[in-house]
Amino acid sequence: MARASVVGVGMTKFGVHDRPLEELFADAAFPAIDDAGIESSEIDALYLGNTLGGMTENDTHLAPKLASHLGIAGIPTQRFEDACATSSNALKNAVHAVEAGVHETVLVGGVERCTDRTGLETDAMTRIFASAAHRHYEQPGGLTFPGVFALLTKRYMHEYGVTEEDLAAIAVKNHHNGTLNPRAQFGKEVTVPEVLESPLIADPFHLMDCCPFSDGASAVVVTATDQGASYDSEPVDITGVGHSTDIVPLADKRSLTATQAARDAATEAYEQAEIEASDVDFAEVHDCFTGAEAMAIDALGLFEDGEGGRAATRDQTALDGEVPINPSGGLKAKGHPIGATGTAQIVELTEQLRGDAGERQIAGSNCAVAHNLGGDAATTVVSVMEARL
Amino acid sequence: MARASVVGVGMTKFGVHDRPLEELFADAAFPAIDDAGIESSEIDALYLGNTLGGMTENDTHLAPKLASHLGIAGIPTQRFEDACATSSNALKNAVHAVEAGVHETVLVGGVERCTDRTGLETDAMTRIFASAAHRHYEQPGGLTFPGVFALLTKRYMHEYGVTEEDLAAIAVKNHHNGTLNPRAQFGKEVTVPEVLESPLIADPFHLMDCCPFSDGASAVVVTATDQGASYDSEPVDITGVGHSTDIVPLADKRSLTATQAARDAATEAYEQAEIEASDVDFAEVHDCFTGAEAMAIDALGLFEDGEGGRAATRDQTALDGEVPINPSGGLKAKGHPIGATGTAQIVELTEQLRGDAGERQIAGSNCAVAHNLGGDAATTVVSVMEARL
Repeated sequence: MARASVVGVGMTKFGVHDRPLEELFADAAFPAIDDAGIESSEIDALYLGNTLGGMTENDTHLAPKLASHLGIAGIPTQRFEDACATSSNALKNAVHAVEAGVHETVLVGGVERCTDRTGLETDAMTRIFASAAHRHYEQPGGLTFPGVFALLTKRYMHEYGVTEEDLAAIAVKNHHNGTLNPRAQFGKEVTVPEVLESPLIADPFHLMDCCPFSDGASAVVVTATDQGASYDSEPVDITGVGHSTDIVPLADKRSLTATQAARDAATEAYEQAEIEASDVDFAEVHDCFTGAEAMAIDALGLFEDGEGGRAATRDQTALDGEVPINPSGGLKAKGHPIGATGTAQIVELTEQLRGDAGERQIAGSNCAVAHNLGGDAATTVVSVMEARL
Repeated sequence: MARASVVGVGMTKFGVHDRPLEELFADAAFPAIDDAGIESSEIDALYLGNTLGGMTENDTHLAPKLASHLGIAGIPTQRFEDACATSSNALKNAVHAVEAGVHETVLVGGVERCTDRTGLETDAMTRIFASAAHRHYEQPGGLTFPGVFALLTKRYMHEYGVTEEDLAAIAVKNHHNGTLNPRAQFGKEVTVPEVLESPLIADPFHLMDCCPFSDGASAVVVTATDQGASYDSEPVDITGVGHSTDIVPLADKRSLTATQAARDAATEAYEQAEIEASDVDFAEVHDCFTGAEAMAIDALGLFEDGEGGRAATRDQTALDGEVPINPSGGLKAKGHPIGATGTAQIVELTEQLRGDAGERQIAGSNCAVAHNLGGDAATTVVSVMEARL
């Protein structure tokens, strides 16, 4: 089995972009190819994540379209869609293909436009996002995603005594990290009172507990690095990728707070990587809402159940804490262009593990995890990356 | 490398269905599981094709939703979208996963609703289909898919002297085959004059040159059959899967008539299977329009360039011809529920190679090919299946 590593990364600033999907993706893909120091002709396949392009821009079959724009048509290309976990699933399949020798070098990435630059108003976009909720049991009742995660989080707070202040501390931390990330959508500090005084969206979430609508793209070059080739950047190995699924709709889940798919995916990824949760130096997790970060870091085994909810309050997840979480600013501050989020987490892990993360660099980290979740905490992909010592 | 085989198949009748996507897919998936004689708990992953569900029914993240409905949530599930080649790409990835030992048994399938039972009128559906055409160079000019394939076919007719009567003969043949397929949307014979007298849609295509809008689902169980297990049905081996991409938009293609991605995918698939085109006993090809069948069978090397256009007129592609094409009735008569078409071709190949195809059984066939195309002849997947002698 070949060893799959990331040898090149690129991403746009997340925020508002007035560019077609082809150009937006190229702004991530070409830098990733350049970062790897390879020629475009060395790319054997494109594994693309895009979640909403059909609904937002009447644009499907994007994989060959983007490959054509990049000048690499002719190779196999394919699009994945698994709600917010879209480009992590593209990564998983690319890693499998490289490990199995199906492809030597794969360009993996995601692109999405979710802001009003699509021409859509916020209510139309909210309806589109809700397409990932159950079509018959959830959408008709108006259960959009702030509501989905509010339900999960409200139960989590009840079970573990976590407070709104604890959730707000997660937003404060991630916004602080965002100020250190030039590609983050939001680069300003916020305070706990500011979070709590922002408008209530879905109890217990205030506006500042919620990630924004974003446009953006991200891309990574995954290649087999045990063939002796050299690259411009230090390879970072993908040593495990776990992927699991929980039940949709919410009402049928065995537990609302366990986010079971994350637990199963983490177990699988850690086994592949031959690590334990205690080996993880930092993580990027799917903080679409503050409560989601709390449940994610419990599920990853980085904290005891319920303690993840208080970890930010205790500074345990700060950049200089025991286990820094979301050094990039997370979805909360970096932004969340749905299909681009998964590989953007991989960009952050790679830069951190190379020691290239600038002002937000976490000292002495060798092993990191990305946790990317889709829909009603239904799809979860957990990836382990390790620097070479 | 494990050997990947199909051990179970299922599909709904294609046509008009008043059932939610979950139930429609279950009507193909459960029969496939039963046909294999396995328990649902033996399925390690779901690889799902759906192309339009977000746009037609505001329903995305379908893989975990359908897995939940089937009672198999917990396994990795993922959705593929590559226009009309959607479920063939799901199959390709499943074959890779089985061959590499990532999964032992994968449920692969597709589901789609494209008729007015979605609540959409024909013009809205036409716009949705056009999402696979280039967003900036083709959609704004109104180039929908009858137009795309009319442009390719008009050039093909010019280069090779193929006539409208020759195209009509393809429709006549496929409609005849459809009369022998109880799951086909159209079960009536048509004549060349009837095709030529049907309304002109996009020159040279008359209405009867075009496949219909369809609802339907298909599923196959792909498993590693060199592990010694036995199955209720005779395994049929997938010995090659090739996948390639051509340029979008049409105007940038090197050739309008070569359908280059099909040639590249066929070369790859034949090499994997260690066969030549002359070894192919019959094929299911992507006849979204009659002209597409002609170009496909040329590209697969089953006929000399240009001769594929006259093959139906000469009865070479009839059920008892030299190389039967589309014994199922093809997209033309069987129907074309976009995301379900690729695995429906695999259902037909499996049943034929088992000798289970009833009135449309092709005598003495051991090696067959499926050709599934997406968008502007951009994505093409070619699969080779072989019976065990």
